Amino acid sequence: MPKPNNEKEALMEKLDLTYRTTVHPEDAKNVRQIVESSGFFNDSEIEIAVELVQELLQKGEVSGYYFVFAENNGRCIAYTCFGPIPATQSSYDLYWIAVHDDFRGQGIGRKILEYTEKLIGRMGGTRVYIETSGRKQYLPTRKFYASCGYSLVARLDDFYAPGDAKIIYVKPLRG
Amino acid sequence: MPKPNNEKEALMEKLDLTYRTTVHPEDAKNVRQIVESSGFFNDSEIEIAVELVQELLQKGEVSGYYFVFAENNGRCIAYTCFGPIPATQSSYDLYWIAVHDDFRGQGIGRKILEYTEKLIGRMGGTRVYIETSGRKQYLPTRKFYASCGYSLVARLDDFYAPGDAKIIYVKPLRG
Repeated sequence: MPKPNNEKEALMEKLDLTYRTTVHPEDAKNVRQIVESSGFFNDSEIEIAVELVQELLQKGEVSGYYFVFAENNGRCIAYTCFGPIPATQSSYDLYWIAVHDDFRGQGIGRKILEYTEKLIGRMGGTRVYIETSGRKQYLPTRKFYASCGYSLVARLDDFYAPGDAKIIYVKPLRG
Repeated sequence: MPKPNNEKEALMEKLDLTYRTTVHPEDAKNVRQIVESSGFFNDSEIEIAVELVQELLQKGEVSGYYFVFAENNGRCIAYTCFGPIPATQSSYDLYWIAVHDDFRGQGIGRKILEYTEKLIGRMGGTRVYIETSGRKQYLPTRKFYASCGYSLVARLDDFYAPGDAKIIYVKPLRG
């Protein structure tokens, strides 16, 4: 049998996604590996991502955090973290969405986001908010959200730091 | 001696504000009385206000909450609650500002807000954000923020509920 050109091509051929929303103790490690793999997040951001899993494991739904994990042949390769926004009737925040670097460019982000939106709709959510940075590094991220039907509703200049704006996107869900 | 026309007038004559930032166990009760007195907040909002005091008392500065209490002749009559916004370099949120109804209309809100801004500046903060509702009921609140130098930077329609927008104000602090 011919050997595949590279490992990524081999992985693409085998893509067979399943989703789960129950969170297991090993998901702290899974989340760390996924967010580290992108090379996109700094150490404190990685710690925050892992802490949200730990908070869910400790407190359950009281934590306010919900997760979707996407698995491919038993390997956890992408996830989202989201939850209802306190003091709102039915608005939700998407706190995290990340795909393992080995599996980028295959539409997995879009698929897990669509799955997450359906879940939020079933939970009674009517609007999904996403906050991200206005820095150049996040241009592909912002384009991704726009292509998934999110509208830019606010830009808070110098929010994260001088020159680093917070951009807020929203997508109303259809019932 | 002539009797004052009403109790409020008597209180106005005696106004002698002092500020403190240390939080005492009885401040849970003080905060409850202040926010209840306005008739402005619903039960769950009142509980949230009190819980922030309890979280500070339990966890200290790790809670992320800081308070200023204004006292008049030993009675706690106004307060603010604020804190650094996680993942930002020097942005702060003003979570709560409230003046006991017995003492409204005397510029106490403006004074405690100015005191709070100075404190945030000393803590290294460069921008203060305030989020509030777009509902009619909050028009005096929004006018108050505008008159204190806050600029409207974002309006998120239907954020809190259908027809109830979130309005975001910001004030850059001068060093």
